[in-house]
Amino acid sequence: MSRATRRRERQERREKASHIPRLPWRNLTNPYPPIEVLSADQLEAIHLASLRVLSEIGMKVLGADARQRLAAAGAEVDDTDRMVRCDPAMVEECMALAPSSFVLKAPNPARSITVGGNHVNFGPVGGPSFVSDLDRGRRAGTFEEMCDFLKLLQSLDIIHIGGTGSFAPLDLPADTRHLDRYYAAATLHDKIWGADLLGGYRARDGLEMQCIVHGIDYEDLPNHVVTLGNINTNSPRQLDGNMSAGLTVLALAGQPVVVTPFTLLGAMAPTTIAGALTQQNAEALFGMMLCQVIRPGTPVVYGGFTSNVDMKSGAPAFGTPEYVKATQAGAQLARRYNVPFRASSTNASNVVDAQAAYESEMSIWASVMGHTNLVFHAGGWLEGGLTASFEKLIIDAEMLQMMAEYLEPVIVNEDTLALDAIAEVAPGGHFFGATHTLARFETAFYEPIVSDWQNFESWQDNGSLTATQRANTVWKQLLAEYQPPPVDPGIREALEAFVTRRKAELNAGPDLLDYDM
Amino acid sequence: MSRATRRRERQERREKASHIPRLPWRNLTNPYPPIEVLSADQLEAIHLASLRVLSEIGMKVLGADARQRLAAAGAEVDDTDRMVRCDPAMVEECMALAPSSFVLKAPNPARSITVGGNHVNFGPVGGPSFVSDLDRGRRAGTFEEMCDFLKLLQSLDIIHIGGTGSFAPLDLPADTRHLDRYYAAATLHDKIWGADLLGGYRARDGLEMQCIVHGIDYEDLPNHVVTLGNINTNSPRQLDGNMSAGLTVLALAGQPVVVTPFTLLGAMAPTTIAGALTQQNAEALFGMMLCQVIRPGTPVVYGGFTSNVDMKSGAPAFGTPEYVKATQAGAQLARRYNVPFRASSTNASNVVDAQAAYESEMSIWASVMGHTNLVFHAGGWLEGGLTASFEKLIIDAEMLQMMAEYLEPVIVNEDTLALDAIAEVAPGGHFFGATHTLARFETAFYEPIVSDWQNFESWQDNGSLTATQRANTVWKQLLAEYQPPPVDPGIREALEAFVTRRKAELNAGPDLLDYDM
Repeated sequence: MSRATRRRERQERREKASHIPRLPWRNLTNPYPPIEVLSADQLEAIHLASLRVLSEIGMKVLGADARQRLAAAGAEVDDTDRMVRCDPAMVEECMALAPSSFVLKAPNPARSITVGGNHVNFGPVGGPSFVSDLDRGRRAGTFEEMCDFLKLLQSLDIIHIGGTGSFAPLDLPADTRHLDRYYAAATLHDKIWGADLLGGYRARDGLEMQCIVHGIDYEDLPNHVVTLGNINTNSPRQLDGNMSAGLTVLALAGQPVVVTPFTLLGAMAPTTIAGALTQQNAEALFGMMLCQVIRPGTPVVYGGFTSNVDMKSGAPAFGTPEYVKATQAGAQLARRYNVPFRASSTNASNVVDAQAAYESEMSIWASVMGHTNLVFHAGGWLEGGLTASFEKLIIDAEMLQMMAEYLEPVIVNEDTLALDAIAEVAPGGHFFGATHTLARFETAFYEPIVSDWQNFESWQDNGSLTATQRANTVWKQLLAEYQPPPVDPGIREALEAFVTRRKAELNAGPDLLDYDM
Repeated sequence: MSRATRRRERQERREKASHIPRLPWRNLTNPYPPIEVLSADQLEAIHLASLRVLSEIGMKVLGADARQRLAAAGAEVDDTDRMVRCDPAMVEECMALAPSSFVLKAPNPARSITVGGNHVNFGPVGGPSFVSDLDRGRRAGTFEEMCDFLKLLQSLDIIHIGGTGSFAPLDLPADTRHLDRYYAAATLHDKIWGADLLGGYRARDGLEMQCIVHGIDYEDLPNHVVTLGNINTNSPRQLDGNMSAGLTVLALAGQPVVVTPFTLLGAMAPTTIAGALTQQNAEALFGMMLCQVIRPGTPVVYGGFTSNVDMKSGAPAFGTPEYVKATQAGAQLARRYNVPFRASSTNASNVVDAQAAYESEMSIWASVMGHTNLVFHAGGWLEGGLTASFEKLIIDAEMLQMMAEYLEPVIVNEDTLALDAIAEVAPGGHFFGATHTLARFETAFYEPIVSDWQNFESWQDNGSLTATQRANTVWKQLLAEYQPPPVDPGIREALEAFVTRRKAELNAGPDLLDYDM
């Protein structure tokens, strides 16, 4: 028996000993037609209005390099006010170059995903500076805890994308922490992780490290789709230099760019859904077009992130009815341009309570049933995205697993129609002991991670725990049982050497790629 | 100014003084196509298998009156084992007599509802013996608290059906408490309430009191659809005498009967969804057919209540992936027979936590997007239906309101596309002060009942309350501000006299209608 086989068997035994059931890895597809909230006429009206935004009103582009590239491709560029206007033909010609779907290769080939069509992929929360759990409350994120979060993401197969740490490790220096995050991602999980597009050098460091992981040359990257990056336009109608620099690094390397305007109705966009979608669409088209200008055929993803604000305070609201409609309309717009769509699972609760769950469920249903290909922030998002929560990650995994099970088709055949079983059980009797039941009982139903179906008395005897309290136990057990993925020692060494060298270089002085602002 | 006008104005002022926003009454329709989890072939296979259950395996009917009626209509009836078998032609001919939709008249005509097509109506939890709130925990239901619950249902316009008290008033005598419940329903809210079908006399008392409320003669009831009743078959394949007696009273009076097999996979039905649906369909068809045998053209509703059990304990599970699929498949079957469909919003949590919310959301989305016409148990259901929760009622109202807002179509026109507003706000600026925003800000977005969108610090300053804790405050405030509907003094007097007379009669001895078992 080889060492690898023994290791696998040991791991299987350990996993069996765990009492936390989980769905195995699944490349999800949604077999049902997408829910569409816009009529064909409405869709076209928004499309045309957004083309008018791009041709008549324009986008402000802070990065000189991006402006030059756009001017060379035929856009009307004013370097004084840094406004860029493009005619509809330019937009349509560029969008026609974007692929409708692509396969994103993970370090472990079994964790690769397809982005496009009716494929659905879930990614974890990204962006927060805070982390929280029931034991220690809300606090600034640290590298150690960020690594714990990554370990949990490796343990939850329902989350397709591992990422580079779901919250900022504020105990590490800001200029070099992206290197520590990339290293953690490359060694703690075997799933996909993205490049930080906040500035060209961070993006390039990510690509260099992906080259080490995948064993390819930087110049050969366009032949291997191995990562992705997300940019947010600085809504309304502005693309800042850091973002266009990051976008440019990825596009030059042929790696997918997700372009996501963050357009809150009444704040960064008009109060009407149609108006906010018009603006979102203009900005998303602009970013995706820029990718095609830089390198025709670059994979791009249309990102939708349109929600409303609280009318009283101006605070962002998520998982609202407006959010659901904007998300499903956004997916329709992406389909119009034949590119994949990205949305999010979000909520605005400050605590892992019923609100956190119902706002997240609204987001998940909206995204999945609208045929979203990448559902970001679907594991651990709390507090409008300012905090990553360990308990919320477990509750989210449960909600995502339930959706995944829902997407499994009903099987109808002679065996499942079960006429023999129905005839076998007497009127008013029960099926617990029926042959048909005994043959299927163990695996017939979805087995939850955290849902408690005990009767009231048993639940009370076991401590009257809420789902959130049970989630606290679950993540600790998963963490205790974490198994790192195999990482080739040569790759690990090369990654370490790269990180050490780049830290020294960055500590020696600023490192802005020339297309930074 | 008339007394009625003054009263209305006073009421409007009071409502304005309340700080709890609520959606106004709305007759909801779902403008999107239903989600269908079964192919046409699969649907037909289940249909045909269930016809074989009815013709070959048969239903046990405990009520002699029901058996006689079925035999007279052509069924094969064995009075020894009380089994009834009917051939497919009989089933199909009967089902062709059922109307595809009907209008159910409420005491207040403005609260009438349409049952069928793409209409969606929500009803409160029914059935529990327990009640709970955060202050007093879980306890046996009393009449006083049952009345409080009815008052809240009157205060929440998103709940279309008022009902007869969502939990049993265990402090009242079992034989006559249905009279107190009917009286409470008729005086505390002006919405629809149903008849208790557990035995013929309870059903008949309900109809008599509806006649008083609506000012019609009992014999004239078939010309006025003013109430409804639900029966559960005693799955598998059994209809007990109480249920058929109640069904018979309603059908003779031309009032709608909802026939709902309660078929838990692995317990009262096969473990497979296809098998459980086959059995559900056979039982539902049988009950609806019996209504047509009793009185051709009786409005009937196909009720689906198929879920799974916990594999470990056999305890019922709700809001699961299996539940979602079975619900949407049930709606497809109902559409095949061109009758309305009833489902439920359910969960198996013992506490108003994240689980209660996500399981309920799965149920609500499943029901509404599958084109369910009556969503029962959608307000206050907890603990697998054993408890009615005051806080859950408020959380449910929020979730239902969010769905209702989602169903409102997106408006796309020159005004909402907002190109002027987009041009008005500078790149990187904000829309808070834009003309377009100021004109719409107050009413642009859905305003929640219980969701809290404050930032973390403000939320903490306000006591770090969970949604469930806030719901506790909300229901108390709504109760304090409750306004009873106007009830004509003559009607009130007649209802009181009826209740007094019937209590005396029932206390004097048993009152079983002759078609009771």
